[in-house]
Amino acid sequence: MGLFRAEGVVYKPVENVNLGPDSDEFYLQANVKAPRMAGFLVKIFAWFLESRIFGTFLLYILKRNNLIHKLVTNAELKESPVYVPMHPFEELNEQEVKHIDSGLSPSEQVQQAINCLPLPSEKIVNGLKPSFRRWTIMDYYKAYSSGEITPCMIAEQLVTAIHESSSPPMDMAFFINYDAEDILRQAKESTRRYGRGEPISALDGVPIAIKDEIDCSPYPTTGGTKWLHKFRSCKGDACCVMRLRSCGAVIIGKTNMHELGAGTSGINPHYGATRNPYNPGMISGGSSSGSAAVVAAGLCPVALGVDGGGSVRMPAALCGVVGFKPTFGRVPHSGVLPLNWTVGMVGVLAGTIEDAFIVYAAINGPLPSHETSAIPLPKVYFPLLQSTNSVSNVILARYGEWFSDCGDDIRTCCSQALHQLSEKFGWKTVDVTIPDIESMRLAHYLTIGSECTAALSSYLEKLDNAESGWDLRVALCVYGSFSGEEYIKAQKLRSRQMQFHRNIFTKADVIVTPTVGVTAYPIFDDALKTGELDYINGAALVRYQIAGNFLGLPAVTVPVGYDKNGLPIGLQFIGRPWSEPTLIHIAYAMQSLCVSKYRKPQVFYDLLTKD
Amino acid sequence: MGLFRAEGVVYKPVENVNLGPDSDEFYLQANVKAPRMAGFLVKIFAWFLESRIFGTFLLYILKRNNLIHKLVTNAELKESPVYVPMHPFEELNEQEVKHIDSGLSPSEQVQQAINCLPLPSEKIVNGLKPSFRRWTIMDYYKAYSSGEITPCMIAEQLVTAIHESSSPPMDMAFFINYDAEDILRQAKESTRRYGRGEPISALDGVPIAIKDEIDCSPYPTTGGTKWLHKFRSCKGDACCVMRLRSCGAVIIGKTNMHELGAGTSGINPHYGATRNPYNPGMISGGSSSGSAAVVAAGLCPVALGVDGGGSVRMPAALCGVVGFKPTFGRVPHSGVLPLNWTVGMVGVLAGTIEDAFIVYAAINGPLPSHETSAIPLPKVYFPLLQSTNSVSNVILARYGEWFSDCGDDIRTCCSQALHQLSEKFGWKTVDVTIPDIESMRLAHYLTIGSECTAALSSYLEKLDNAESGWDLRVALCVYGSFSGEEYIKAQKLRSRQMQFHRNIFTKADVIVTPTVGVTAYPIFDDALKTGELDYINGAALVRYQIAGNFLGLPAVTVPVGYDKNGLPIGLQFIGRPWSEPTLIHIAYAMQSLCVSKYRKPQVFYDLLTKD
Repeated sequence: MGLFRAEGVVYKPVENVNLGPDSDEFYLQANVKAPRMAGFLVKIFAWFLESRIFGTFLLYILKRNNLIHKLVTNAELKESPVYVPMHPFEELNEQEVKHIDSGLSPSEQVQQAINCLPLPSEKIVNGLKPSFRRWTIMDYYKAYSSGEITPCMIAEQLVTAIHESSSPPMDMAFFINYDAEDILRQAKESTRRYGRGEPISALDGVPIAIKDEIDCSPYPTTGGTKWLHKFRSCKGDACCVMRLRSCGAVIIGKTNMHELGAGTSGINPHYGATRNPYNPGMISGGSSSGSAAVVAAGLCPVALGVDGGGSVRMPAALCGVVGFKPTFGRVPHSGVLPLNWTVGMVGVLAGTIEDAFIVYAAINGPLPSHETSAIPLPKVYFPLLQSTNSVSNVILARYGEWFSDCGDDIRTCCSQALHQLSEKFGWKTVDVTIPDIESMRLAHYLTIGSECTAALSSYLEKLDNAESGWDLRVALCVYGSFSGEEYIKAQKLRSRQMQFHRNIFTKADVIVTPTVGVTAYPIFDDALKTGELDYINGAALVRYQIAGNFLGLPAVTVPVGYDKNGLPIGLQFIGRPWSEPTLIHIAYAMQSLCVSKYRKPQVFYDLLTKD
Repeated sequence: MGLFRAEGVVYKPVENVNLGPDSDEFYLQANVKAPRMAGFLVKIFAWFLESRIFGTFLLYILKRNNLIHKLVTNAELKESPVYVPMHPFEELNEQEVKHIDSGLSPSEQVQQAINCLPLPSEKIVNGLKPSFRRWTIMDYYKAYSSGEITPCMIAEQLVTAIHESSSPPMDMAFFINYDAEDILRQAKESTRRYGRGEPISALDGVPIAIKDEIDCSPYPTTGGTKWLHKFRSCKGDACCVMRLRSCGAVIIGKTNMHELGAGTSGINPHYGATRNPYNPGMISGGSSSGSAAVVAAGLCPVALGVDGGGSVRMPAALCGVVGFKPTFGRVPHSGVLPLNWTVGMVGVLAGTIEDAFIVYAAINGPLPSHETSAIPLPKVYFPLLQSTNSVSNVILARYGEWFSDCGDDIRTCCSQALHQLSEKFGWKTVDVTIPDIESMRLAHYLTIGSECTAALSSYLEKLDNAESGWDLRVALCVYGSFSGEEYIKAQKLRSRQMQFHRNIFTKADVIVTPTVGVTAYPIFDDALKTGELDYINGAALVRYQIAGNFLGLPAVTVPVGYDKNGLPIGLQFIGRPWSEPTLIHIAYAMQSLCVSKYRKPQVFYDLLTKD
């Protein structure tokens, strides 16, 4: 076996690694060795990979060339594996927060969140009225409460808009399923509640879309495939959907996603390539493609996604909306497709950080008993957003070389945003070194791939390969190629990174990065039927995502500007475990500095404006 | 790939499985398809397995024939994986226990344990003075305290006895390393302490042997290999050894073990086959072979072992001593070879349950910070052993078909012991069904194998195969053959079994089984140089072990009699998480009923009797 093995890296023990700016740890750029493939090329590649003999050989070459052997498989490191990124709860003594009693209902939690919001007069920031803003949850609530507009009126417009956007010539491919009758029925109930003057909460009548990875009646849960729902029937609402419904929200359908979440472009060969509202020729990003795009297009103020490797934050950044992924374990996972167990988390896509916060308030809460781990449940705090000056002395950690490993427009825009934070709020940026980021990306890939294989193998057995898209077939071959040893090595790297990050958070409140390394790129025709393999763009998209998933840390992306083609750019903040309030505070401050520059997407539905 | 895959079992959801005696779950006997091999045959087998092409094919056949594909790899089950068997601490409200303050030193904990012991007068049980008993910790302590005998006197005798037993014609192969000078030096210090009337604790001057899997100065930690210590140097005492030393114990050397713990016979091709003191022609069992044998042979009252798949309890049963494995997480693992992370635990081998308790008192305690998980540390309770009538209404769960899947003498003897418990104490036995025991054995094998590979691969890379024994070479080939998918499937089975056991412990205090399915079997000459592969006897040995490791449950084996050839038989009790006090109570009661039948081994050193 020795002959076939590549030399492995010997990692220094954590305690000997310098995390300061003067560290001799070097930044390794993603070493992706695979050309873009689409159309016939993807098919050939999949055929080879699926053949027993060529496949084994090809996978070996792929894993070696992409440094998996060197950085993971054959690596030497002494840290014990950590399998689940569940952090013990710690009192963080965050600034300007309010403790939320346990045992409140989702609608009571929503009310608590609303009590934390700034007064409406403060909407005009820096003396500027924003030239463009999407309607928010509170806009809906006020319109409904005044009686000017009813949920039924909105629902009817919405059904028309969804239908239009889903049909030629637009073909935005936002949804996998929606049911006009179901939408209208929910809206009617909500309208009656407002009529009686008894809305359940501020979410009553508010349209919300759900990623098709989350169970939600009356729809099947396809996971973006043509087959998963045939094996696994949806038996009712996922826990998070149930909580939204109990607040009166109108669920408008199941959004499109990258097939099985196994890619980042949002190009789905069965349900169409989700198109970016800022430029329909461009990708929306993925895998929660539809959820990001519908919010950007104004169809609803918020949508739920699932973030297993940046799947909420990446499309949020590409579509110019907020994407918020809480700490691992904050939101119950019941009723979400079990595609993995240790990296995925429900997250929120929203037009504003306030709306992400309100929906987070609705869905966070005690886990159902079978999800309860040995760890006592963390306390819940909400941020008091009454004034943007409320948090002071925030320290932002920035790893320069990593931060800069992105497109020029992104680097410039994100650096400016960071500069503004320092100018306006006096927050300090400290330079740090985060070692082995590329190793962490590979370890995460190996983990999510192995878990996905274990989750699906019994279905895949019974399945004709031809029912899956070609890019998924390639992904499944790679996912299934990892050994038990490699999986465990990846968990040793997880342990190492958890320790590094714990150390960094002794010096800083958050880590700041661009959200993605590239802005939305074109959807080429050859990819529409086969999907595409574009590992170079894929690596640029996930570049800054992994700590949020592999280490279970909370993270949020906020739109901070546009590239020279008018495509959105996001800035990401990664926080300490359980530090959602601080993250929301910071994101709110960032948003307040950027809201005046926000631009309207090419595809936009202005549902609340009466015409 | 479909062509090559065997049909997988579809496991029922846990909530639909009947665990009562009338269950329709059937008991699947271990389906081992592999003949015994030793000598030249093992070599050929290893060569084939190590060849890239034949090996892949052969491993496939082995895994399929031994039902790994059917019961694990291709199985369908909905439970989420549980990776580490760490149980949340619960207050169990056990009978006759005493809470031990946190923060006590090891020697203070030892004193607390001694305060819990029965008065010496109670040693004569059932009106019978036992015909044979080994000297206990308290015997040593009293002899030293009275001044009649000094630790130096014992140490001198001991060095002679170790030397004799290690040399021809005896060649018992008890030790891998011992250092006469180091023993005498420690004894001298202890003698001085007694001389000043200042022994540190009841363990002062008591000889204790350490399995060569646990770091202990001044010895290398070989793990039973000829090479591991060349890559990983021993930098000082393991945490548990440090605690014993702080009580004044005299560490007498590093005991022999199955190479890397990768087998159950205790036949080590480098350091000799550890021979059973009850019959030196027979195996001692493994992998903590030497630790069981030295206690049986009277060289020391207690020894430490490590139990990753029954490695403490199996040799204890075969050598007629007590073997005690606490709950996962009760004893710090620091300084134990990291051969696995989720199944192995330090355990105690002792002549009596009281001595196992005293040593457990010394070594249990708060984990060092890097071992601290997210789980708050469990409280410590000690059992009050003053009267054997002290615990009442104990309910023992017995799974009849499983209990009976062992040699006739074992079945008869263990059933009698159980009957006695009911006669004497009025304890009740309830019949239960524990589903999928064979699946659990395979899932555990796959887990420990994958973890061992991940732990050692970087060393194995640099190693000439020829430095390892032949049976280890075979084991390493199998260990390295598992996929990430298989590892995760195994963790899903772990989750399932944890739920089954949790349910059973709502109906019973302990599960009772024979400790092993066979008594000690012969050491054949052809195995001495190559090791042997005897998967049928191996499966019979581990048959009742797995819950203790894979589910992290505490377990204890007590000698209860002998087979027709005079070889010892053990009875095992498996307890609820953190229920060590109840387990000790039960084991103590069992011992009190059996002590009158205890027999002297063929090889026995009577160190305390002055001649």
